[in-house]
Amino acid sequence: MSSTHPQPYEPPEAEASSSRNQAAHQPSIEDDISDDDDNILSADPLDNDLSNRISFKRKQKAPTAGFSLPRFLSSPLSSNSRPQSSSPAIRNISESRQSPYANNHAASDSTDAILPYLNGPDAAGPQLDTKDGSTLDWYVEGPGRRVGYDDLTAIDWIYEYSRERKRQRDLPYQGYLRQIWDTAEIWVLLVLTGAASGIIAGFIDVASDWAADLKTGYCSNVNEGGRFYLNKTFCCQHYDEFAKCRDWRTWAESWGVMAKGGSFIINYLIFVLFSVLFAACASYLVKQFAAYAKHSGIPELKTVLGGFVIRRFMGTWTLIIKSLGLCLAVASGLWLGKEGPLVHVACCCANLFMKIPWFRTINDNEARKREVLSAAASAGISVAFGSPIGGVLFSLEQLSYYFPDKTMWQSFVCAMIAAVSLQFFDPFRTGKLVLFQVSYHSGWHSFELLAFVFLGVLGGLYGGLFVKLNMKVAEFRVSSPLIKNSVLQVTAISLLTALINFPITFMRAQASELVYILFAECVDIQEDSLGLCKSGRANTGVVVLLIIAALLGFFLAAITFGLEIPAGILLPSMAIGALYGRAVGLIMEVWQQNHPSFILFRSCEPDVPCITPGTYAIIGAASALGGATRMTVSIVVIMFELTGALTYVLPIMISVLISKWVGDAMGARGIYESWIHFKGYPFLDNRDDNSAEVPDVPAAQVMTRIEDLVVITATGHTIHSLKSLLAAHTFRGFPVIDNAHDAILLGYISRTELDFALSSASKTRDLPAETEAYFSLQPLSDPTTSLDLRPWMDGTPITLNAKASLQLAVSLFQRLGLRYVVFVERGGLRGLLTKKDVWIVLNGEEERRRGDGDAVGGGRGVLRRQEGAEERGLLGAEGEGDEEEERREGLG
Amino acid sequence: MSSTHPQPYEPPEAEASSSRNQAAHQPSIEDDISDDDDNILSADPLDNDLSNRISFKRKQKAPTAGFSLPRFLSSPLSSNSRPQSSSPAIRNISESRQSPYANNHAASDSTDAILPYLNGPDAAGPQLDTKDGSTLDWYVEGPGRRVGYDDLTAIDWIYEYSRERKRQRDLPYQGYLRQIWDTAEIWVLLVLTGAASGIIAGFIDVASDWAADLKTGYCSNVNEGGRFYLNKTFCCQHYDEFAKCRDWRTWAESWGVMAKGGSFIINYLIFVLFSVLFAACASYLVKQFAAYAKHSGIPELKTVLGGFVIRRFMGTWTLIIKSLGLCLAVASGLWLGKEGPLVHVACCCANLFMKIPWFRTINDNEARKREVLSAAASAGISVAFGSPIGGVLFSLEQLSYYFPDKTMWQSFVCAMIAAVSLQFFDPFRTGKLVLFQVSYHSGWHSFELLAFVFLGVLGGLYGGLFVKLNMKVAEFRVSSPLIKNSVLQVTAISLLTALINFPITFMRAQASELVYILFAECVDIQEDSLGLCKSGRANTGVVVLLIIAALLGFFLAAITFGLEIPAGILLPSMAIGALYGRAVGLIMEVWQQNHPSFILFRSCEPDVPCITPGTYAIIGAASALGGATRMTVSIVVIMFELTGALTYVLPIMISVLISKWVGDAMGARGIYESWIHFKGYPFLDNRDDNSAEVPDVPAAQVMTRIEDLVVITATGHTIHSLKSLLAAHTFRGFPVIDNAHDAILLGYISRTELDFALSSASKTRDLPAETEAYFSLQPLSDPTTSLDLRPWMDGTPITLNAKASLQLAVSLFQRLGLRYVVFVERGGLRGLLTKKDVWIVLNGEEERRRGDGDAVGGGRGVLRRQEGAEERGLLGAEGEGDEEEERREGLG
Repeated sequence: MSSTHPQPYEPPEAEASSSRNQAAHQPSIEDDISDDDDNILSADPLDNDLSNRISFKRKQKAPTAGFSLPRFLSSPLSSNSRPQSSSPAIRNISESRQSPYANNHAASDSTDAILPYLNGPDAAGPQLDTKDGSTLDWYVEGPGRRVGYDDLTAIDWIYEYSRERKRQRDLPYQGYLRQIWDTAEIWVLLVLTGAASGIIAGFIDVASDWAADLKTGYCSNVNEGGRFYLNKTFCCQHYDEFAKCRDWRTWAESWGVMAKGGSFIINYLIFVLFSVLFAACASYLVKQFAAYAKHSGIPELKTVLGGFVIRRFMGTWTLIIKSLGLCLAVASGLWLGKEGPLVHVACCCANLFMKIPWFRTINDNEARKREVLSAAASAGISVAFGSPIGGVLFSLEQLSYYFPDKTMWQSFVCAMIAAVSLQFFDPFRTGKLVLFQVSYHSGWHSFELLAFVFLGVLGGLYGGLFVKLNMKVAEFRVSSPLIKNSVLQVTAISLLTALINFPITFMRAQASELVYILFAECVDIQEDSLGLCKSGRANTGVVVLLIIAALLGFFLAAITFGLEIPAGILLPSMAIGALYGRAVGLIMEVWQQNHPSFILFRSCEPDVPCITPGTYAIIGAASALGGATRMTVSIVVIMFELTGALTYVLPIMISVLISKWVGDAMGARGIYESWIHFKGYPFLDNRDDNSAEVPDVPAAQVMTRIEDLVVITATGHTIHSLKSLLAAHTFRGFPVIDNAHDAILLGYISRTELDFALSSASKTRDLPAETEAYFSLQPLSDPTTSLDLRPWMDGTPITLNAKASLQLAVSLFQRLGLRYVVFVERGGLRGLLTKKDVWIVLNGEEERRRGDGDAVGGGRGVLRRQEGAEERGLLGAEGEGDEEEERREGLG
Repeated sequence: MSSTHPQPYEPPEAEASSSRNQAAHQPSIEDDISDDDDNILSADPLDNDLSNRISFKRKQKAPTAGFSLPRFLSSPLSSNSRPQSSSPAIRNISESRQSPYANNHAASDSTDAILPYLNGPDAAGPQLDTKDGSTLDWYVEGPGRRVGYDDLTAIDWIYEYSRERKRQRDLPYQGYLRQIWDTAEIWVLLVLTGAASGIIAGFIDVASDWAADLKTGYCSNVNEGGRFYLNKTFCCQHYDEFAKCRDWRTWAESWGVMAKGGSFIINYLIFVLFSVLFAACASYLVKQFAAYAKHSGIPELKTVLGGFVIRRFMGTWTLIIKSLGLCLAVASGLWLGKEGPLVHVACCCANLFMKIPWFRTINDNEARKREVLSAAASAGISVAFGSPIGGVLFSLEQLSYYFPDKTMWQSFVCAMIAAVSLQFFDPFRTGKLVLFQVSYHSGWHSFELLAFVFLGVLGGLYGGLFVKLNMKVAEFRVSSPLIKNSVLQVTAISLLTALINFPITFMRAQASELVYILFAECVDIQEDSLGLCKSGRANTGVVVLLIIAALLGFFLAAITFGLEIPAGILLPSMAIGALYGRAVGLIMEVWQQNHPSFILFRSCEPDVPCITPGTYAIIGAASALGGATRMTVSIVVIMFELTGALTYVLPIMISVLISKWVGDAMGARGIYESWIHFKGYPFLDNRDDNSAEVPDVPAAQVMTRIEDLVVITATGHTIHSLKSLLAAHTFRGFPVIDNAHDAILLGYISRTELDFALSSASKTRDLPAETEAYFSLQPLSDPTTSLDLRPWMDGTPITLNAKASLQLAVSLFQRLGLRYVVFVERGGLRGLLTKKDVWIVLNGEEERRRGDGDAVGGGRGVLRRQEGAEERGLLGAEGEGDEEEERREGLG
């Protein structure tokens, strides 16, 4: 084309390049094109090919020339008439698009990821170019051929689902067995995942119980059936009471220290020692072997399910280290829970099973993978709380981005299998799914609703304050850490925790045991070791102790959650809620017993216990969970399944309702959303709750305009020139237009696909660097000596009118799971908006609203304050990713 | 434009008209345009206006002429080069677009609906045209101004949500009280709805119980506390056993007939008489006063929630008649339930409350209305089964189209309030929410899983056969009814039912009592009137009776569901499931008692009842529900909440799982989906389960091509010419293009908006019919003497590339809730696809697959068989709608 174009290399292309540092590179690419093109024309060995090419070019000449008439340029829509207004604001987005992400630091992995695509039925490779123009139609008209996703990029939901549909439609032409397996594989996978989750959860239960008891003593009396590998409960199961259990020997006893003071000190020291040791080990394992095993994993999982690729987040090492670390972390007595991390563990299981070749069709599709992960997440909660339905709702309410009915059904099966497996494994030897499963014998009176509402308010306050404090601690830990080394941080906090835990009886027990005792009715407690069932005024001390324990637990949990250790926040929240709930219950009980004639207590029957403090504990736990996570239905169902009591569903609902309201009033984000925001994960919330936060501006004000974009014209390129373009720019993709004059949009090609297509053309087909590459139908060019890139181009990108509102664009991103939207006007390219741009705008806007109260401004104001968010957010996360990468590679 | 255009009325426009009978009208419109235009120019009283117009036209002339250069016409994309291939297949869609829907048979209502829009802040009316071009930008760039929806049209979700966001953003500039109310109103509305649902459900419970007992006798002994208005339970509550209750007198007793045979016959006759009377009354009420009160209402509700407008479906009359009719229908002893219809009742309550002016902001927005209706639906199930969480899940799983987390939370609150209200009302005076709430004392053994799996298979078979049989009956009833009159139909079936019910003790009881007794454990049954707790071989007769009752119930339910009477299918399914479940349980019990040493029964403890037949009944009920409705999670949760037993969640899950599989294998649709399909409601399922059913063709093969479309050019129209266009065509909307030559898409205007804009211009502004009307910026035209229609045009319709696949288009429709997608190529209009087209294609495709096995063909094959579906479906529904319309208008 270049040879026939009237003004071949005039600078209109320059306006299509990014106006910043790219501008310097741009001319060189242009030069490359002309040089190479000339080389082809002069050095091509095939003469008839040459004539073909020339004749083709003549054929195309007419419309090209027509479109580039000066008249067209003078139309009001041509780009030179638009104001250059967007520069500072828009450049931020341009910069973000060239973030270090693009420097593919996992090159070897992406090659691995690409290879399977070559084996699939879609693979084209060498035979690609033997097809003539007509058979290429499918590729040209479809969403384009794709290569696997890079690490830390967004997936294209629409494309994944259309690929899956295409696969399903091709299925009837395959074997009958293949079809049966295609229906069955998802269920086999879910059963495997569920069973593995149940077994691992059982193992973690047993191991952490044993290790936790090791802090206080060991099972010794080998002759009478005691074994060192038994935990205290099993060791003493032949005795009526723990106090009479001779098999279990505290450390002081085993060393013959019988003096009260001495044994206290020795037991204290050993307790602290083991606590710190366990915590340090867990942290060391995480730091050394699998950085993604830290934390609860739920914020990351939410991001992954939202359509983001984080490699190794659910790998083998993560699974092993998270499971082991969880045992140690739980045993250490730190204020953390295993419930959230079990979700991550279940997802790791699912991810590993998916890598088995049997499940190739699922593993090949990122959208189906995410459906399976949603189901696995529900299995995690199912085994954590013994609550299969609660697990499904947790996955639906908290985790999943896209949750069709099909996924609900699959989650349901997976959660059920996991619960059955755990019940079969029966780690507590009680036949119950969870340690703290209870049942109540009495109902509630309507006057108690006042107390339940109060508990709801407390829960909301707890949640709101916890999120604020935990975020402050996390920011402090990043900005000015007292101790830089993460293992030392964990050690210090575990030391503090152990020192506090031992003297306070409520806190010495494992959190799960504590919750069990707090939930229980007094008639069910055989051994009241914590003194919860005293009567009358003797309770005052217990109430004070409960409140102190709740407060200490609150602070310890707030500094613990976020350490580099597997740690969940669900159980600590429940424990804190149960502590203050039981305290309120005891106060109510004492009040009622002392003033039975008080107007509120009229409905109590005489001589029958009217108040059940255990129910206050469970309602307190529900309210605390509601305040911290801002979930609603799933908490009620989990509590319902824990207690099995329909009777208490209504009070639980009311307290959760109120705690969510109070919590939301104190801060819009729950703990997981706060961490997503803090870590800067590119999670585009698809809830409409925050829809008012989308600025009311036309999308044109936010998009990267054509002037700032690097675009590719349909013709006039060589392999070399395109490779240079890729080298010069780090953008994730490039719109393809017919020519620089009228900029009619032809499609969009992603960096990955372009890169792969160029490389495979060079490598497998041995095409010289000067080979012509084009993006539009060139019926007369020789496919053996030229490169048709149309199969790799998305020929039907989702487009919006450039006048559309940002609202509409955001809706498209949220509902369709897009990666980019191209803006056109009368067919001509006007701009581009990527998922990341939208994320930045939304989060920037939020920052602005929460910030120092800037006046509500236009698009520029919206974007001005984004540098901070971006640097702390995405780039920060990126930096961490690199560190982890290095660590893992150190492992080998 | 016409005066300056070189070839003013050459026929290019003709290609843009529908190629069928419209073609005859088209020229006359064209003539109208020219005539009127001339009239304007000659008869306009304002001279300077005339000059303005002329100068404007000169200004615009250049680009217009440029675009219509012959060169442009010769481009490969111009429409005259496309083959006229689509005629027969595409015409079906064209026809469907001109279905009788467009003949607005509720004109008076739609005027009512339009008026409030004039009062709102968005209303433009008279002041509209005083704005100059620059302030009009918002309207021009936005999705366009809208008028209320007509009856039986689809809503535009995207637009409704964007309107809501705009409203929320304007809120901070309104009063503080206004903002508080804006947050609170939804909760007030939900509380009102929940409370009303609870109270109405309680009233229906009490009234239907009393009326049902009236069939057997009455409460008479006034001196000893008996009152005629008491039902049997309350009448006899002072007696230990019903048998000893002297206050309750059967009809035979009251007439002094003491002979056994005589009293049986008299009681039988009275029973049949009352049954038929109740049923006939219910049916008469429905037929006479509110046709929409028939049936369960769930298929219609699902369609409404999917974004369809059905006026009066949830009106006052529907509420009154449905509630009254439900009492009568339930009392008549027909095999129907009140559970499904209660959902409809709750939605009616919500809809009526929304009409209160307080809730104007909700009522004005069709999308928010649907959120409230989703919540109300969950309240319906909540009171029906005493299962608030089950209600939320039912709404999520079965009913709702778009169910964000926000809606889940609102549903949760509404369901909770409804349950609390009902419990406060306490219709059964038991403190329990539902009559058949039970609790079990024992667990289950693993060998029982085999029986539970068997029950699951039975449930699936039941569901599959029920749907098939019920649909056959429904088709038969439409095609060749034995009795045409719907009241007589009901009478006949109620006569048959009553004749069968009375002799069989299981069936004589109300379905809810039957379920209660079948679910109960024998130790809890004080009076074994049905003989369910015999021991040993005495059970054989009971088992046979149970199976007979189940079979008879199956047939009676299948012929009852679909009558013109308020009727649900949930309770009959539960009853049938409980019958066969209890039968299986009894068989297991007898087997175990006779062969305690059999290998399966090893785990049973001796001398303790091992099998609890009541649990088999509940699992059977769950499996039958699963088979009929194909719900999963919600059934398990409803059963869970009914029994309050965590113990039985796993067996219930397994049986529901299996019954769904078996049911799906017998037919893809559950009972509600089958009715939606049968009725031909335009419900576009947004589940991905059936995604493989979307034909793999480019959208271009299905869309209505530009050749078959009626398009409007941007200029050259008068009010009169546009009115003529509206009169000549019944299409729901028209794409707007810049001119007929290059057909660059400018926007899309719906019929309703165009109609309203033209009428209001004529009426409120007194513009003459010759006034010029235009759709593009005319900076120099006088706004006082011309009509700028841009505010009413959707300037940024969702567009797709004409090469995109139908898959992609369908995804857009499903996920975004669109009404139309415009197809463009290089900016030029290529075609249009509406929601209805998509619906026809999907349902036609399904028909084809299920049909006589046509070869998998291209787009034409896909569309060829649609006539049948269309006629029976949409047009059928339309015909019914008209009938109902007439009936209602007969009421006044």
